Amino acid sequence: MNLLAVGSIAFDDLETPAGKREHLLGGSATYFSLCASNFFPIQLVAVVGDDFGSDEESVFLDRSINLDGVMRQTGICFRWKGLYGSDLNEAQTIETNLNVFAGFVPKLPKHYKNAPYLFLANIDPVLQLEVVGQMTARPKWIALDTMNYWIKGSPAALKKALQQIDILLINEAEAKSISGEKNAIRAAKAVSSMGPKIVVIKRGEYGALLVTTDMCIPVPAVPMETVIDPTGAGDTFAGGFLGFLASMGNLEETTLRKAMLIGTIMASFTIEDFGIGKIASVTTPTIQDRLKRFSQVLGIDGI
Amino acid sequence: MNLLAVGSIAFDDLETPAGKREHLLGGSATYFSLCASNFFPIQLVAVVGDDFGSDEESVFLDRSINLDGVMRQTGICFRWKGLYGSDLNEAQTIETNLNVFAGFVPKLPKHYKNAPYLFLANIDPVLQLEVVGQMTARPKWIALDTMNYWIKGSPAALKKALQQIDILLINEAEAKSISGEKNAIRAAKAVSSMGPKIVVIKRGEYGALLVTTDMCIPVPAVPMETVIDPTGAGDTFAGGFLGFLASMGNLEETTLRKAMLIGTIMASFTIEDFGIGKIASVTTPTIQDRLKRFSQVLGIDGI
Repeated sequence: MNLLAVGSIAFDDLETPAGKREHLLGGSATYFSLCASNFFPIQLVAVVGDDFGSDEESVFLDRSINLDGVMRQTGICFRWKGLYGSDLNEAQTIETNLNVFAGFVPKLPKHYKNAPYLFLANIDPVLQLEVVGQMTARPKWIALDTMNYWIKGSPAALKKALQQIDILLINEAEAKSISGEKNAIRAAKAVSSMGPKIVVIKRGEYGALLVTTDMCIPVPAVPMETVIDPTGAGDTFAGGFLGFLASMGNLEETTLRKAMLIGTIMASFTIEDFGIGKIASVTTPTIQDRLKRFSQVLGIDGI
Repeated sequence: MNLLAVGSIAFDDLETPAGKREHLLGGSATYFSLCASNFFPIQLVAVVGDDFGSDEESVFLDRSINLDGVMRQTGICFRWKGLYGSDLNEAQTIETNLNVFAGFVPKLPKHYKNAPYLFLANIDPVLQLEVVGQMTARPKWIALDTMNYWIKGSPAALKKALQQIDILLINEAEAKSISGEKNAIRAAKAVSSMGPKIVVIKRGEYGALLVTTDMCIPVPAVPMETVIDPTGAGDTFAGGFLGFLASMGNLEETTLRKAMLIGTIMASFTIEDFGIGKIASVTTPTIQDRLKRFSQVLGIDGI
C-alpha cells in the first residue's frame, strides 16, 4: 500500500528578505514526499539529471520514499530561480530551466501501477493525465495540484484532468481565476462542478478552506512570526493533508478536518527554513507536538 | 453594570453588487450596540439630528441599549455614502457629511461615568480621549477601534489614546501601516507595545487574530457564500467580541477564544443583509445555533 506521487525534483536558487541560497534541492515532488512520508509510504515518479547524486538520493531514502519511478537522464535537473519581496505572498520567477524535465514522459514501474492513492503534483496536466492512464486499477482517490501557468497554458488538458480526479488543491486566486467567481466558496463549488468532489482552497498565511457539496471547513494557518522562505508551503500542505488521508483510508469529515490541520502544520515547518532545511529533519514527535499545541490554541480537544 | 460605548449614529447610502439602498440607519455605535446588547446591557454616547425619530429610537430601545447619552442637536445626522466593488473587501467612500457630528463633544450622563467596561468605537481619537477623561473610575477594560483615517489624520491623539486602553481592534492593513511591520503577528506585537495588552487583528473574510505577549489565537471567518453588504462587519465583530467579554467579566484564554468566535458569528449575520437589516432582528437562539454549528465545523466541542 503506497501513495504514488508524480511531480518535479529540482534545484532552486532562492532569495527572500531573510537571505539568498543557491542550488537547494526542491521541486513539488520533493517537498510533497518529504512531508507525506511522515504518514504513509510514498512511491515517487519524477525525472532527474546527472547532478542528482547520492547526497540527494539519501534525502529521500532516509524516509519511506521509493525512488524506483525516478528516471535518470543525461543532463541536469530542472532549475528554478525565485525571488520573494517583503510581503512573501508571491514568488517572482527570475528564471526557469526545464533541462531534463523538457522531454519527460513519466513511465510507471509495474509495482507502482496499482497504488491505492495517487497525487499529481503541480506539473503539466498532459503529464498528469499520462500517469492516470498508466494505472492498472483506478486508485481509491486521485488528488491534483495545479497553478496559473497550466490554467492559462493547458486549459484543455487541465479540464480533462479535473474530470478524472477526486481532490483538487488550488490557490485561492487560481480558483477564482479558473471559475470567474469572486467569492472563495462559490469559486470552490464551481471548480468542484468540473470534477473533483473535494476542493481545498489554499490561502497562504490565512490557512485553507475545504469545500464539498455538504461541507465547508476553514482552517487558519499556524501563526508564524518569522517566515524565512515560503517555497514549497503549498506542496507540503498537500503532503501533510494527503499523507494523513492515505493513512486513515477514509474521507470522513473528522478525517478531513484533521488532515487540514496537519497540512497547515507541515507548511508551518517548511517556511521556518530555506528549502527543505526543516522538513527533511522533522520527526513525528515534533509534528505531533505542534499539532497538539495548535489544536489547543484553536480550542479543539482530543486531536 | 453596563458596557459604555461611544461612536457614530449615521444614515448611509450604500451600493454593493447586490443592489443599492438609501438612508439606512448605520454608524459604528449603531452596529456595535445592536450586537453587543445580545450579551450585556449597553449605554450609548453619540450625537443625532432632527432626522433621528422615534422609528430609529425604537431600534435601540427594543434592545438593552440606553440612549441617555445620545445628544440631540439641530441639524441632520452624520451621512456616509459608500460603494463596494465586486471583491467586497474595501468600501469606496463616495461622500461623507459630518453634519451634527462636526461640533460633537461627548458629554457623559452622571450614571454613565462608572461603567466597568468602555468601548471607543471608530471616531476621532480626540473624542475617544474626551470620553476616557470623563470617567470617574477607571473601567476594568477600555477597548478601542480605529482606522486609517485617524492613523494618518490624528497620530498624536491616537498615540495618547493607545496608551490608555487595554484592547485594540484594528484591520490587518491598518496594523501593518501603523507599525511598519509586514507580518501580522509582528504588527500586532508592535502595536501592543504602544499600550493595549490585547490586539485583535481583523482580517475580513479570513477571520481574526488575537495577539498578546503570551497568546496568538487565529479564528477563521464563518464561510459565507453570499455577501450582501459588508458595512458594519468590523463594528459587529467588536460588538459580539466585547459584549461577550463584558458578560463573562474575565479575560482568560478560553473566554477570549469564545469571544472571537462570537465576534465572527455576529459579523456573519451583518453581511447577510443591507445595513442593520439582519442584526436588528437576530435573536439569542439564532446566535447560539450558528455558534454551535460553526464550532462543530471547526471541531470544537462544548461551546
